[in-house]
Amino acid sequence: MSTITETSLQHELLVDLQLKSWTTHVSRITQLLNLLSDEALAREIAPGKNTGTYILGHLVAVNDGMRKLMGLGTSLYPQYTEPFVTSSDKSGNQFPAITELKKAWTHVNDELAKGFQGMRLSDWLDRHTSVSAEDFAREPHRNKLNIVISRTSHLAYHLGQLVLLK
Amino acid sequence: MSTITETSLQHELLVDLQLKSWTTHVSRITQLLNLLSDEALAREIAPGKNTGTYILGHLVAVNDGMRKLMGLGTSLYPQYTEPFVTSSDKSGNQFPAITELKKAWTHVNDELAKGFQGMRLSDWLDRHTSVSAEDFAREPHRNKLNIVISRTSHLAYHLGQLVLLK
Repeated sequence: MSTITETSLQHELLVDLQLKSWTTHVSRITQLLNLLSDEALAREIAPGKNTGTYILGHLVAVNDGMRKLMGLGTSLYPQYTEPFVTSSDKSGNQFPAITELKKAWTHVNDELAKGFQGMRLSDWLDRHTSVSAEDFAREPHRNKLNIVISRTSHLAYHLGQLVLLK
Repeated sequence: MSTITETSLQHELLVDLQLKSWTTHVSRITQLLNLLSDEALAREIAPGKNTGTYILGHLVAVNDGMRKLMGLGTSLYPQYTEPFVTSSDKSGNQFPAITELKKAWTHVNDELAKGFQGMRLSDWLDRHTSVSAEDFAREPHRNKLNIVISRTSHLAYHLGQLVLLK
C-alpha cells in the first residue's frame, strides 16, 4: 500500500462508490426474496405481466452473463439463458424450482463478488469482452466498470417490480 | 485543457460513465411519458399500488431535491414534497394536472443538467450538503457523485414500475 497517492485513492473511491451501489442492490433483492413466499414469488407483478419467478431467473441469467463480459469465467447456469433471456415469461417454458433459482441467485452473486475483489483499477478501466480493441480506443467508456453500472440499474429496475409482490 | 493528464482523463471518464447512466435513465422515462396517454399514466401500476401520476410527481420531487443536496440551488417545486414524498399515493391529496407534472419533470431535469455541466471533478468528489465536514472526513463516499449514483438507481427502480402502464 506504499504507492497509494491521493489520486489513486480518488480512483479507488470512484470505483468503490459504484461497487457499493451494486452490493446494496444485490442485498436488497436478497432480503426481498427471503421475505416472499414461493407462492408470492410465483405471482405476476401485475395482471398479465412477468411473474416473480421469471424475473428472478432473468436476474440470475443476466448477472451470470457478466462473468464472461468481465473476463471472470464462463457461465455457471448457461441453461438459464434460453428461458429467462431469449424467451419471454409466457413462452410456455418449464422453469426450475424456486428453491433452485434462489440458490443460483446466491451462487452467481457470490462468485461475482469474489471476482470483483481480485480486480484492480486498471482492470475496471479495461474493455469488456464484447468490445474490440479498436472500438474501445474510440469508446473508452465501454469498460468493465460500465458493465457494473448498467447491471446495477438493471437490478434496481426489476427490484422496483419485485416489491409489488409484497 | 493543457493540464490534462492520463490520470485526470481517467477521473473524468469515471464521472462521465455515471452521468451517462443518469442521462440515459432520464431520457428513457421521458420517452415512456411521451408514449403514455394521461389516462394510462393515471392508472395504478398494479392493483392497489401507486399510480403513474404519483410516481411521476415523486420522481420530480426527488430529482428536485438533488438541487439543494448538490449545492445547485433551491427547490423549484417545494409544493411537491408533501404530496409526493411525505405522503403516500392513497393519502387523498389532490395532485397537479399531468400536463403540469410533465412540464415540471422536464424543467427539473433540464436545470440539473445545466448544473452538472458546471461541475468539475473536485465538485463531484466534494461532500453533499446533508453531510457535515467531520462526517465527510470519515466517510468520503458521501460525495455529490454518490447522489447521482443513488438517484440513477431510483429512476431505474420506478422506470421498472412505469413500464407496466404500457
